Amino acid sequence: MIIQKTENSRISTFDPNNFSFGGTFIDHMIICEYEDGKWGDVKLVPYGPIPFTPAMMGVNYGQACFEGMKAYKDKDGQVFLFRPEKNFERINKSAKRLAMPEVTEEMFLDGLKALVDIDREWIPQGEGMSLYIRPLIFATEEALKARVSNKYMFAIVATPAKSYYSEPVSVKISDHYSRAANGGVGSAKAAGNYAASFYPTQLAIEEGYEQIIWTDDATHEYFEESGTMNVFVRINDTIYTPPTSEKILDGVTRDSFIQLAKKRGIEVKVEPIPVKTVIEALKSGSLKEVWGVGTAVVTTQFQALGYQGEKLALPRLSDDESYAALLKKDLVDLQNNLSEDPFGWRVVVDHVLETV
Amino acid sequence: MIIQKTENSRISTFDPNNFSFGGTFIDHMIICEYEDGKWGDVKLVPYGPIPFTPAMMGVNYGQACFEGMKAYKDKDGQVFLFRPEKNFERINKSAKRLAMPEVTEEMFLDGLKALVDIDREWIPQGEGMSLYIRPLIFATEEALKARVSNKYMFAIVATPAKSYYSEPVSVKISDHYSRAANGGVGSAKAAGNYAASFYPTQLAIEEGYEQIIWTDDATHEYFEESGTMNVFVRINDTIYTPPTSEKILDGVTRDSFIQLAKKRGIEVKVEPIPVKTVIEALKSGSLKEVWGVGTAVVTTQFQALGYQGEKLALPRLSDDESYAALLKKDLVDLQNNLSEDPFGWRVVVDHVLETV
Ligand SMILES: Cc1ncc(COP(=O)(O)O)c(C=O)c1O
Ligand SMILES: Cc1ncc(COP(=O)(O)O)c(C=O)c1O
Repeated sequence: MIIQKTENSRISTFDPNNFSFGGTFIDHMIICEYEDGKWGDVKLVPYGPIPFTPAMMGVNYGQACFEGMKAYKDKDGQVFLFRPEKNFERINKSAKRLAMPEVTEEMFLDGLKALVDIDREWIPQGEGMSLYIRPLIFATEEALKARVSNKYMFAIVATPAKSYYSEPVSVKISDHYSRAANGGVGSAKAAGNYAASFYPTQLAIEEGYEQIIWTDDATHEYFEESGTMNVFVRINDTIYTPPTSEKILDGVTRDSFIQLAKKRGIEVKVEPIPVKTVIEALKSGSLKEVWGVGTAVVTTQFQALGYQGEKLALPRLSDDESYAALLKKDLVDLQNNLSEDPFGWRVVVDHVLETV
Repeated sequence: MIIQKTENSRISTFDPNNFSFGGTFIDHMIICEYEDGKWGDVKLVPYGPIPFTPAMMGVNYGQACFEGMKAYKDKDGQVFLFRPEKNFERINKSAKRLAMPEVTEEMFLDGLKALVDIDREWIPQGEGMSLYIRPLIFATEEALKARVSNKYMFAIVATPAKSYYSEPVSVKISDHYSRAANGGVGSAKAAGNYAASFYPTQLAIEEGYEQIIWTDDATHEYFEESGTMNVFVRINDTIYTPPTSEKILDGVTRDSFIQLAKKRGIEVKVEPIPVKTVIEALKSGSLKEVWGVGTAVVTTQFQALGYQGEKLALPRLSDDESYAALLKKDLVDLQNNLSEDPFGWRVVVDHVLETV
């Protein structure tokens, strides 16, 4: 790895109690370029611009995929990644589906650790605080031809993330728009999937919802995901989540919730969730909770479902009654080194590089 | 419009008989930036790099769409655009579906004309030669949050294009992969649609085909498009093409073919094309031709269809017998000012700017 430390650290301007998530960038980034059929050196360099023309294939043909993951700092200042090998596997799954070169474990994991290590001062400490990390691969060749690019960049950038208390939201069960086709790229973290979801989400917001529950595009009869989260439904004391498929992103949080629920002896059923079943359960009183899970906010609880033009209120459970709240706490405690780690999910980031 | 002419024209290095299509860029480009809810000045500047960090939203979330169109130079050196208002309408349709700001007619059409005018020397002359023009809009804000961007760039870049004789190709009728979902972005020229098509196309190539005929994602029983072209089928003396929909791009060449066919008195039916109907017509001998149409190569004729593991040969018609060849010639002649223009499709590019 080639390391070029910044000579203009911005850390003194960073106020961990007052910053904008997503728009504040740590001092460094990882970059690595692919050309002539192979990846070059991994470079840790100051965060900053790289020259690209508007003919760059990444923006023309959307050959780009990314990951979202976090690093956590415990009360002693130790820093941990959470299940980073899952993100490594998933970025390569995405890359394959988009006909992009896969990255090596060394590029991904060592790059990640070096970046988090050198910029560990940027990781805010305290409840819910973390560093949000964005590995991505995108096509960089300049060419106006709709074909696979010959040049790529792998990069890792990161932004401090705040405690993100998320209010319960109202979600619209999609009856027209969809995020994934059969035989499409729904299971990839493909850049284009996100742009495609913005307009339907805007329309749902205009109708008084915060998010969309995506349903299958052919019939809209089955739950797929919610916003950019996987979805869970609790009926009586059993929790349900749809099986992953080529239309559903295999979320790390989803998988962690399943394992944590099982550990607690909660019954988990991974099976298709018909919209009708959920609505009937709501009407009969057996539907207890519906929530989304993802790296960004861990859990968002839902307070109402939009279905066939009606906004149907969901029961409001106390934190003691809610599986969503319980499992969120289990996960957050584990991520923040406040509890045991029977699964081996935490990966400590050693002090290897001298800080600037 | 702010005009900054290059001081280092590369035109002397350009050999119209020997250049790479898509990788050779004309001297200038148009750029215009969107910020604080509005578009700034349109600028005509030297083609070249612009600094972006890997946090640029365009590559992270695929909020990007584009157009593909051509300028043609006739034997007297006059330069024409072809139905540019169709591309203007379509880029805004794409932008809307991707929750991006629409561009103004002034930005798009005046930008186009100024760019083609200033770099008219780059347009190769002769049969099938043209300038391929790529307007695009992409998100430029630096932010690691999956939401609508607040900053965009509109750009127009261009590359000389060669006479592109295209051999008849074998196409696989897709039975698993698809390019568009119901309620998705198939009718937008969204960047992500192209990346999604690369891997399935690679697999089809490994099976001995050149392209894919995309079918509906739910049943794979209906033709949608072929590769990055709209598709036509001729049974006896009637030609069929699927109606445009939210899954099918409303191609300018498709529309032109329909009008040119009607003008010749050829019966055109715009209706869903079941795969079964095509296969039965092939077996009974009534299937005469299947072809794709698009700006890049105008027409690609198909020589075989891959269906259920078999490669079924299509009849080989002479140019005199082929509607695909006939309509292609009608269109190319019109585009190149070799025939009358009863439709008013040609738009002359006036000499307004002094050439460099
Ligand atoms: C579409 C989509 N679904 C689900 C998730 C949740 O995945 P993870 O738990 O790995 O963050 C994400 C990413 O956050 C996503 O973008
Ligand atoms: C998916 C797709 N379908 C069809 C077409 C044909 O459209 P047009 O004739 O406007 O070039 C294109 C673009 O060339 C395309 O990208």
